[in-house]
Amino acid sequence: MNETTRTYDVIVIGGGPVGENVAERARAAGLTTVIVERELLGGECSFWACDPSKALLRPVVARADASRIPGLDPAVAGPLDVEAVLAHRDKMSSYWKDEDQVDWLNSVSVDLIRGHGRLTGPKRVAVQTPDGDTIALTARHAVAVSTGTRAALPPIPGLDTVRPWTSREATSADKVPGRLAVVGGGVVAVEMATVWQALGSQVTMLVLDNGLLERMEPFAGELVTEGLREAGVDIRFNTTVTSLTRDGGEDGEVRMTLSDGGQLVADEILLATGRAPQTRDVGLETVGLTPGDWLTVDDTFRVTDVDGGWLYAVGDVNRRALMTHQGKYQARIAGAVIGARANQEPVDDAPWGAHVATADHAAVPQVVFTTPEVASVGLTSREAERSGRRIKVVDYDLAHVAGAHQYGEDYRGRARMLVDTDRNTVVGVTFAGPGVGELVHSATIAVTGEVPLDRLWHAVPAFPTLGEVWLRLLETYRG
Amino acid sequence: MNETTRTYDVIVIGGGPVGENVAERARAAGLTTVIVERELLGGECSFWACDPSKALLRPVVARADASRIPGLDPAVAGPLDVEAVLAHRDKMSSYWKDEDQVDWLNSVSVDLIRGHGRLTGPKRVAVQTPDGDTIALTARHAVAVSTGTRAALPPIPGLDTVRPWTSREATSADKVPGRLAVVGGGVVAVEMATVWQALGSQVTMLVLDNGLLERMEPFAGELVTEGLREAGVDIRFNTTVTSLTRDGGEDGEVRMTLSDGGQLVADEILLATGRAPQTRDVGLETVGLTPGDWLTVDDTFRVTDVDGGWLYAVGDVNRRALMTHQGKYQARIAGAVIGARANQEPVDDAPWGAHVATADHAAVPQVVFTTPEVASVGLTSREAERSGRRIKVVDYDLAHVAGAHQYGEDYRGRARMLVDTDRNTVVGVTFAGPGVGELVHSATIAVTGEVPLDRLWHAVPAFPTLGEVWLRLLETYRG
Repeated sequence: MNETTRTYDVIVIGGGPVGENVAERARAAGLTTVIVERELLGGECSFWACDPSKALLRPVVARADASRIPGLDPAVAGPLDVEAVLAHRDKMSSYWKDEDQVDWLNSVSVDLIRGHGRLTGPKRVAVQTPDGDTIALTARHAVAVSTGTRAALPPIPGLDTVRPWTSREATSADKVPGRLAVVGGGVVAVEMATVWQALGSQVTMLVLDNGLLERMEPFAGELVTEGLREAGVDIRFNTTVTSLTRDGGEDGEVRMTLSDGGQLVADEILLATGRAPQTRDVGLETVGLTPGDWLTVDDTFRVTDVDGGWLYAVGDVNRRALMTHQGKYQARIAGAVIGARANQEPVDDAPWGAHVATADHAAVPQVVFTTPEVASVGLTSREAERSGRRIKVVDYDLAHVAGAHQYGEDYRGRARMLVDTDRNTVVGVTFAGPGVGELVHSATIAVTGEVPLDRLWHAVPAFPTLGEVWLRLLETYRG
Repeated sequence: MNETTRTYDVIVIGGGPVGENVAERARAAGLTTVIVERELLGGECSFWACDPSKALLRPVVARADASRIPGLDPAVAGPLDVEAVLAHRDKMSSYWKDEDQVDWLNSVSVDLIRGHGRLTGPKRVAVQTPDGDTIALTARHAVAVSTGTRAALPPIPGLDTVRPWTSREATSADKVPGRLAVVGGGVVAVEMATVWQALGSQVTMLVLDNGLLERMEPFAGELVTEGLREAGVDIRFNTTVTSLTRDGGEDGEVRMTLSDGGQLVADEILLATGRAPQTRDVGLETVGLTPGDWLTVDDTFRVTDVDGGWLYAVGDVNRRALMTHQGKYQARIAGAVIGARANQEPVDDAPWGAHVATADHAAVPQVVFTTPEVASVGLTSREAERSGRRIKVVDYDLAHVAGAHQYGEDYRGRARMLVDTDRNTVVGVTFAGPGVGELVHSATIAVTGEVPLDRLWHAVPAFPTLGEVWLRLLETYRG
């Protein structure tokens, strides 16, 4: 067993997209930087989340869209070519190899140490390498924890016997289960139910709540519920699994007892029941924090409960916004502010300044790639109500927009815009309907830019696009 | 022959989308209003342009998109169902009947007089009805001319013998010509070449210029050229028709002599060679203007060469921006300002005010529904250069965006952002690539809202969407 010691300006624990971006920006600020990664560089998003899931979803969504277009619809009435879809997913996951990302990291002059990194005290990290060696690292300026999250599994009796799917297996499986039980009603649950039902599984969703996508506007979950049911998914609300077991060894069936007293049998079970921070084994106890906790940070990503301002937590692990793109945004800002502080440059932490993640509070976009799609940014009406601000909720039926008529027959969709009536700006938008995914950035710019409504009146939507819903929302607001 | 006389606050000549919106807004301001329309209420856009053309294009674009998705591509390898596409187009054109629009006009309490309206002097209009009657109208406050444009035909010897297609026939034809010659290289030409080639015609494009879509950024035309050629269209640049004839009566072939000395034979010929104002027979001579001219207006749509401020020209006929959505924008503003002046309310004509069409100069969006699509707003680099402003041109290869990888295999596309470096805002954006249509409104809001680049840095694009190109453009700008 060898022990070596190295010093860097910045040490980043966790090399997902967030860690990569923190490191790249810190390096760009002139700081020597290293990433410690125990699995694949590129992390969850590249290999077991965004990239493979969207590769699986894209043919499903495109087929659903095509099936609503007269003249094209008969061609897509048949099933997808499952083998081709899975092969494409494999390619989009880089066959679970990270050479390309390693090349990129080299190109930006950031070091990589493969192994399990743990804090051992202020500015100190020990890496246990796959060979059993230990590398002791010291940071001159900052340590950033970007270890993300893992699937949080509920304490169901029998769970240890069934080898459940989590988001990882659901995005990387190479066989279509005949019957798939999906536990949960959030984004992972609805996206993976969409995929596997379309690939041939009979999917049953077991949902604790009374609806899907409960954190979004209610109509979003309602439209996705309709879409999933029309695709053949069996959705059971207010239902949980109280116990389960896998019959007859490895390939046996999963037998579930449900909270309504019923039984359900499936070939696989996906637990999409939330996320927990990957902080159980990163040495938090050595710096006065509690292993397994989320890491609370200020708007410049310094962990608030650690003295000295050297410890940062960036991305999902800080619980501010569990989305790759938002984590990367945080990373750009964290890398910049680490650089500014190290170089004793001024820190611009006024709202919307260069070194503060104001958008985390005001404008987090999200796209759910289901049929129909859901896209949102900023506040929901429920959040707006809690905020105490004076808000007007403006709704419009997307089906009445000419661009929706053109998009496909029997278009169903909804749009909601929240206006802060004191400031005369848009503070939240939700679209649900086929094809709305690329529309969300218009809302993100409107909310982030705090563009006054009187000015938005001059932002003309091209005819006939779905974007014309903006005009209708503004007209509806004016009454 | 009867002659009646009526008085309204506002008379609108031309009941396309623009005239409808002028009338509706003036009526909403409390003014009695009448529309005079000699064809179908709803105009060119509803019956012979936007609506039918997009109904024809949507299956072509969706099929092209689907053909790039592994697992879905084999299903869409065959031809479109032409009969179903044309039947759908008929439906989307309301079977060339305007009852629904008449109902809508009634619902907003605007009168309709069917017939040919001509100015007969200041604030006076005479309508010749289909029955041969004449109705004399007097306007208390304003007359708005919204007669739009017609196809401008070039003076080619023999043209009168061939019954050429214009945009009207190209969008309403119910038979697929075996061979179609398309003269022109603008939006109508590329969209209709896309449609008819996909529906089974062998299309040959004869293009005066050295490229397509010459008013847009050069890469847009280049990508559309590639797409059309891959679809099988024969594109000949720097080529015009010098003479032509139709052989052997009604169903004979069109025989063209080309500027390069060659011959071309086709079953139909589409002339997409520009537009001319519909002002030859609207009585301009009675108010001191020249029949056939475009009508020059100020930013509140008053015709500048007529005294008294009672004559407005709104939409394509004023040549400011020949697009339905921009004409409707003008109509909203013109209706409001007519109302304000009639009611002796203050006119807000400062830039971006309620009564001035500032976006006509700064932020006209356009989407070309080809394969690939093109979407743009604001200045092109050529226009920026002419403007004398200090501009930085920022380019990015859309194929490098994760959302593009997900959109389809072998994605090709480009994005360009123009930054006014003195004001630190975006003044023009062009996207070209599959799926970019709905992305344009993000750019329209950024340009219209004059959102500073430092704030756009906080507008996070959702991963993995095409919208992530915004991040890449901003990163590229920062260098």
